[in-house]
Amino acid sequence: MTQTSQPVRNGVDTSVMFATLDAIKQQPDLARFQFRASNVWLGGAHNRSTIRPFYGAGQEDSTRTREFSIDAGEPAVLLGTDTGPNPAEALLHALAACLTTTLVYVASARGVKLTRVESALEGDMDVRGALGLSDDYRNGFERIRVNFKIEGDAPSEKLQELVNRAQRRSAVFDMVTNGVPVAVTGSVSQSTGNHTNGSVDPTGA
Amino acid sequence: MTQTSQPVRNGVDTSVMFATLDAIKQQPDLARFQFRASNVWLGGAHNRSTIRPFYGAGQEDSTRTREFSIDAGEPAVLLGTDTGPNPAEALLHALAACLTTTLVYVASARGVKLTRVESALEGDMDVRGALGLSDDYRNGFERIRVNFKIEGDAPSEKLQELVNRAQRRSAVFDMVTNGVPVAVTGSVSQSTGNHTNGSVDPTGA
Repeated sequence: MTQTSQPVRNGVDTSVMFATLDAIKQQPDLARFQFRASNVWLGGAHNRSTIRPFYGAGQEDSTRTREFSIDAGEPAVLLGTDTGPNPAEALLHALAACLTTTLVYVASARGVKLTRVESALEGDMDVRGALGLSDDYRNGFERIRVNFKIEGDAPSEKLQELVNRAQRRSAVFDMVTNGVPVAVTGSVSQSTGNHTNGSVDPTGA
Repeated sequence: MTQTSQPVRNGVDTSVMFATLDAIKQQPDLARFQFRASNVWLGGAHNRSTIRPFYGAGQEDSTRTREFSIDAGEPAVLLGTDTGPNPAEALLHALAACLTTTLVYVASARGVKLTRVESALEGDMDVRGALGLSDDYRNGFERIRVNFKIEGDAPSEKLQELVNRAQRRSAVFDMVTNGVPVAVTGSVSQSTGNHTNGSVDPTGA
């Protein structure tokens, strides 16, 4: 093992990684995390998520110094004005990002130096499902393909094993392939006043 | 129906919406879409997806005039440098965005004017799964909670029905709750030269 002599590998400090693993083994409740996102509708297919607070390692995080923002939209053919990637494309991003980070972390732990990790994702969808035109099609992608290009300082068989291991440990790969229970609750209320015509419309339309 | 007298509702042109539905009914292969994302690793937990081309409505899209970009990262406690929302947070965004857009489209089709749509999402995770420390925990979220706040020009029961309908028709809600088959392929290659020490590291580390 070389983590002592060269702790930072692939941009990951493996001495911190191994210390983190040891700390969780000693105190398993450090492993409880809660991630969050808030979303606000901005009109039509345009909405925006903001992401900052999370709980983990036994406390509310206080280290993030800024809020992240991701806009969503739809292209014209799906009735939007291209204000951002559409939600299905955002899901492809989440999947690509998680497989990549998992791969990089696994490689770092195993002493493999990576020089290139790229991926291209495709998802196939028949929108008759989501549009409610046919029950023969699901709402989401029928299938997703992920194609990786990976270069690293190890034999191909070892690099291939990293790809396999990334699939077995990726949080988003797990969720996208196996599904997650989602509970939707909410408060709904009728707008005050008569907004049927000439109302204040947050879309500006 | 009021779509003739007031076609743009909630920022959605319902005359275009109904024409699109009619066109797909006449020519079902217009419903075939393929969405895509490309991701490149930038070092450590930092990677970036770019999103632009897609296929749909019988052709490669030529209407999008710009490429979208989403960065991913991890907070310090998960060995990153906060270069972006983490992949699990990005998945929450995708889910929030899709439920919101679906709700807005359904409301528009049904003649309901919305004045507010906000949501807050939480996902619970025990990272012993993804870290490979315990087989008792899955890699991804155990559960996700979505809480909506919705105001619109309709009775509460009708607004609640829109929320229910959004769940039944959202592409990402379908994928996250039911799962999607994901096929991972790739080409791996050993870097040329001896990169074991002192190699060119794309992370700059």
